[in-house]
This record gives sequence, C-alpha cells and structure tokens, in this order.
Amino acid sequence: MSASHWINGVSSNELDPAERALQYGDGVFETLCVRHGSVAYLHRHWQRLRAGCERLQLHFAEWDGLTAEVHRLASELDDGVIKVIVGRGAGGRGYRYAANAPCTRIVSAHPPAQWPAEHASVGVRLRLCRLRLGVQPALAGIKHLNRLEQVLARAEWENEYAEGLLLDCHEQLIEGTMSNLFIVRDGQLLTPRLDDCGVAGILRSVLIDIAREQGVEVRRSRLELPDFESAQEVFVCNSVVGIWPVREIDGRYRFASRKVTQNLQQALARRQETEGIWYEE
Amino acid sequence: MSASHWINGVSSNELDPAERALQYGDGVFETLCVRHGSVAYLHRHWQRLRAGCERLQLHFAEWDGLTAEVHRLASELDDGVIKVIVGRGAGGRGYRYAANAPCTRIVSAHPPAQWPAEHASVGVRLRLCRLRLGVQPALAGIKHLNRLEQVLARAEWENEYAEGLLLDCHEQLIEGTMSNLFIVRDGQLLTPRLDDCGVAGILRSVLIDIAREQGVEVRRSRLELPDFESAQEVFVCNSVVGIWPVREIDGRYRFASRKVTQNLQQALARRQETEGIWYEE
Repeated sequence: MSASHWINGVSSNELDPAERALQYGDGVFETLCVRHGSVAYLHRHWQRLRAGCERLQLHFAEWDGLTAEVHRLASELDDGVIKVIVGRGAGGRGYRYAANAPCTRIVSAHPPAQWPAEHASVGVRLRLCRLRLGVQPALAGIKHLNRLEQVLARAEWENEYAEGLLLDCHEQLIEGTMSNLFIVRDGQLLTPRLDDCGVAGILRSVLIDIAREQGVEVRRSRLELPDFESAQEVFVCNSVVGIWPVREIDGRYRFASRKVTQNLQQALARRQETEGIWYEE
Repeated sequence: MSASHWINGVSSNELDPAERALQYGDGVFETLCVRHGSVAYLHRHWQRLRAGCERLQLHFAEWDGLTAEVHRLASELDDGVIKVIVGRGAGGRGYRYAANAPCTRIVSAHPPAQWPAEHASVGVRLRLCRLRLGVQPALAGIKHLNRLEQVLARAEWENEYAEGLLLDCHEQLIEGTMSNLFIVRDGQLLTPRLDDCGVAGILRSVLIDIAREQGVEVRRSRLELPDFESAQEVFVCNSVVGIWPVREIDGRYRFASRKVTQNLQQALARRQETEGIWYEE
C-alpha cells in the first residue's frame, strides 16, 4: 500500500511547490498511530500541534475539518499510521511570511510500521550517533519540519541497530532519531530535559503520567553518557512503536534488567484494552 | 507576475507530497540573479549546490538538464530571480532514505526583487535579532532547506529595518537573515567564519576575490558585537540585492564612512559590464 494524500481536505497528490513547508520547512507535523480504526492519544497530538503552531505563529484554523478527516481516514485504514503536516501555506520568495495567509494541511495514510516483535520483547541495540544536535531553544520540544539532523543521523547506520541515540553539542543525552529516551535508576525514571533541542514525544508524556500514577518518581533531567553506567534499565519509545527495552548501546553499555520497563509495557497494554482512556483521554 | 514551476524539467504546479524536501526539508536550494537574460555567477552557485548535495549525500545527476532549464528560463525572464531546489525525492515514512532514489529538481521563476535604490546608495538600518542561530557544523555553509531559524528571525520586524543580523548561541556574529556580513577595519575586510552555522554566500565569495585582486586584505574571523565599535564601515550582501552599506545597527552602532564599500560596489558594477567575467567565470 502506498501513501495517499489529502491536501486541505481534498484527495490529491498535487502540492503547490510555492508551499512554504517545502521552501523552508516552515511547518509542523504529527505521526498518529491508528489501531482498530481509532487514533491513539489524538488529544495529546493536537495539543503538541497547537503548541507548535503557536511557537511558529502559524495561524491554523481548520481543527474541526482536520479532526474529521483524521477520524474518517483512521476508520478506513483500521491499522496503520496517519501523518499530518500543517504548513505555512503558499508564499512568495523570501523568509518573511504574510501574517494572515491560510495554512496548508496535508494528511496521509500509511501501512502499519514493520518492526520485529522482538524489539519490544527481547529489546534492542542502539547506536550512539556521531552527529550532535544543535541547540535551539526557539524550536525545542515541538515537532517542526526542519529534520535534516535526524536524516543525517539516521544515515549513519543501515540495519545493525534498531535506533540511534543523539547527544547535543554540549554532550547532553537528548533522544533517539525517532524516539524518546528513558533511564531507570534505583526505581526512579529519568528522561532528558528538552529545553534546548529534541521533540517532546507523545508517548513520553503518556508514560510519565502512567509511571506517576503507579507511584514511580519521574524526573526530567540533564543526562550524559556516564548516566548509563549507573542505570539498571534503559528504554526508548514513540507513539508508533511503543516501548523498546534497550539491551545494549554501541557495545559500551549493557542492561540485563527489564523489570520496570516491562511493568510500563504492561500498563500501556492495559490502557489499550480500555479504549476510552487510551484513545480519547 | 506569479511564480511558475518546473518539476524535473516539466512545467508543473503539482508536487508529490511524499517529496522528502517537504516532509523533512531534505534538500538544498539556490537563488539565482538573472539580468539581461543571463544568470550571474552560475558556476559558483553550482559549486555550492554540489557541495550541499555531497554533504547531504544527495545523488543528484541531472546537472545538464538543470543547467539547460535555467538558461532557457533566464532568457525568457530577462530580469528576475530563479530559484532552484534539489530534494531527496519522494520517499516513504521515516528518516531513513533509499540510497539510490532519484532526486527531485524544482525550478521557479520570479520577478526582480523590489528594494529601494537608497539601500545600495545611502545605506540601510539593521536590526540585531533576538533569535540566536544554533551551532551545527554538519549543516554549516551549505544552503539547505531547513530555514525555520531564518523564518523566525525575519518575523521579528516588519519594515523598519532592511535586514536583521544574527548571532549564534555563543554570541558570535554570523550573517543576516538573507545576506552575509562584512566589516571594514583599518582598510582590512573581515567577514564571519561559517564553520559552525550560516550560509556561505556566493556574492561573499565573489567580493573576497575582488577585494584581494585590489590588494585589500580579507580575513574570515570570529567576530562579536564589540567588533562593530572598532569598525569604520559595515555592509551586507547577497547575489540578488548586491551590496548594501550599513548606516546604523539597532540604534547602537553608526557608520558614517562608505569608502571601501563604494569601491567594492563600483568594482562589482564594472564586472557586470564585462559579462564574460561576471556571468561565466
């Protein structure tokens, strides 16, 4: 199944090349996980999309149309992934944008992501990427369309790792190329602060809530490579793949335990069964 | 006149939304100045485009087709601007790219840029932007499509300044939002090093060559705001607008002299008259 696209509510594979999302990466996106015809955590995705629009001063107004489209597509797709892009809209040459130009929304449907089931059960090997993320607080946390750092980092390996970890230019641990990072230390959950760079993942926020409900302390911290030495468990996560326990990082760090990680996987699975919580919030 | 687009050599306003230049800003671009039907400094633009393709591992092969298109368009346009985008091509979901997928080239024609003639004669006022550029050596120098920093910086003012100056997160002077920066100090020309961020402009490289031919010493330096205090002249430049002397920076620095800057403007104008040099190199 190849992707099909809806541009501003119309089925179309014809985008105006003057779109600023193409010209400058001037926009934001979300990647939605669809299971049994429902979109997981749609409310949280829309919260982040709104935050991204505010940060970039994108005046996107078609929330009802977008939401209806996503629900209709999810029901047709049943299982898979929906990607939503909100771009600044078509514009002339030059970085300056017109304050009131209408945004462009592009929605596409994709087949389910194909990953070995062992990634979630047995765990994965991670690469430590050579590339360092630049520090840019003005863009940190939101899911904007300037993703060359992730493209370059992902090109550092073929299939020998399941994911690559990224540090920033100050050697702070930040995230995976497509996932967020958690460390378990002495029963506590630690995840990197994302004030300087990185994407604040939806499943990251869900897991922080679940862990706290279970009485597990969670801290957003400054983390560096030596923090892996004092960690009992490490995992990465995103909305589409769920939680992957980490067995090994680049031959340098190994983690035998998965106890806390498995508890979270099970708690997450229980939420999936009670759709009202998982899908609507 | 609105823009018209050629996608892979075909007149079209219909871009495949799966294009990675849209999805991730995965590509590079050039902005070409066209006068009397000829493209200025095309050879240098292609050099930078090639360098960008190499840096991003974009395997663009259609140089002959692209060059023929640009010459044909330039001749039709007579005076104006041609923008060229080379994108990674249509791809599936995910940051990983197929090694041998064909790139997409998008060429568009635009009317001449409209700037007051006084910008070049009397000089301009610059803003000091609040936004700081992130440091990313992997992307520094090339003209890639991740331009949200420039979009955000340009949104800091309306028309009260001609251009905005950008510092990086270490308070180093880098460039304007759409131009490069030069400082004249004691007869010497200084321009910021672009190892960490910034775009290595075509006119910047031309002016470095012209100045050296005239016996003026040019240095790529680490520059900071206090360097404006010891400067006699400041100017910004790009391929489309040429050279703009700077009269004032954000009410903090003023420059009465334009002697060296005017010499360079005149040398540049003389090159324009001898088209063989200016347009072909």
